Amino acid sequence: MFSRHVDALIDAFRVLPGVGPRSAQRMTFHLLERDREGGQGLVEALQRALEHVGQCRQCRMLSDEDICGICRSERRDASLLCVVESPADVMAIEQATDYRGRYFVLMGHFSPLDGIGPDELGLDLLEQRLDSGEVAEMILATNPTVEGEATASYLMDMARSRNVRSSRIAHGVPIGGELEYVDGGTLSHAFQGRLEIK
Amino acid sequence: MFSRHVDALIDAFRVLPGVGPRSAQRMTFHLLERDREGGQGLVEALQRALEHVGQCRQCRMLSDEDICGICRSERRDASLLCVVESPADVMAIEQATDYRGRYFVLMGHFSPLDGIGPDELGLDLLEQRLDSGEVAEMILATNPTVEGEATASYLMDMARSRNVRSSRIAHGVPIGGELEYVDGGTLSHAFQGRLEIK
Repeated sequence: MFSRHVDALIDAFRVLPGVGPRSAQRMTFHLLERDREGGQGLVEALQRALEHVGQCRQCRMLSDEDICGICRSERRDASLLCVVESPADVMAIEQATDYRGRYFVLMGHFSPLDGIGPDELGLDLLEQRLDSGEVAEMILATNPTVEGEATASYLMDMARSRNVRSSRIAHGVPIGGELEYVDGGTLSHAFQGRLEIK
Repeated sequence: MFSRHVDALIDAFRVLPGVGPRSAQRMTFHLLERDREGGQGLVEALQRALEHVGQCRQCRMLSDEDICGICRSERRDASLLCVVESPADVMAIEQATDYRGRYFVLMGHFSPLDGIGPDELGLDLLEQRLDSGEVAEMILATNPTVEGEATASYLMDMARSRNVRSSRIAHGVPIGGELEYVDGGTLSHAFQGRLEIK
């Protein structure tokens, strides 16, 4: 309204997920009035990330190098391969579990209407990986949504035809949740997936 | 965790107001996975704003130029001066009201504990403005908080000693609000500030 550059910055902040016109304005004023140093830090960090962060050639995880740290690490069990939809899923699994195998990041899920098929998900790369004979078990950790399930089922067939064992992470009542408030689909899943107590 | 540049970017996003670790991660992945062009646009807009946006020499509003558009405009009534705490307040007033006077932006409010006094709020500049004789009425639109009220009352004295009329924007029950749910302070203000119906 008063400054071309201020207006342009408010607009530019709206590319961020969850940022509407009010938050974009708040971010702009905050940086320009109170934290220009932090703003300059953000410029540099973003510029550097855009320039240097690509995808791991082996697992498609976001990485600074050709092959990411997990794929390079000798201490990771190469016979376990966990397939996830996004880098955020890898972060979540690494932070919460003691999984020590490797990953394959699809960067999405099957979505024919958006033109996302096997090529976009890098499934040729995944096939090579299964063909190499290195992988004993493929753990399917795609999201429990319609698209995630369709993707998992396609990958399950891919593994079966190559005699690679595949498994799906368990879906059921979340820890700390109350049965009464859990949705029907989850509860029905929890019954189907019940485990025998030994 | 896997990429130095990714981690640095997640950290850098946390300078933004209202952005915690989860949103910072979401922003980072969103830009790197899906909108690198938008990310580059943000880099450039932020860099340009940091370089070129300063404060108007006359009213302290964020501005690309020495004197901002409102202060330069001949169509603005120079005899009315509205004092606000921040550039966002100017935006809000411009968008909602038909005020056609000029502004003075304090960029804060009195806060002795944080070392914010007359100098930090540019009150010497405001005094010059009042001394120039150009201003007939100073409208105090600081926030109705303890600090905002203290600031307003200081400015009121400043105007009185210079024989400049000053006014305070009305505080009361918000339009569309329900009396039952309005807080006590606001309701009491609304009674004190009642206007006679003619």
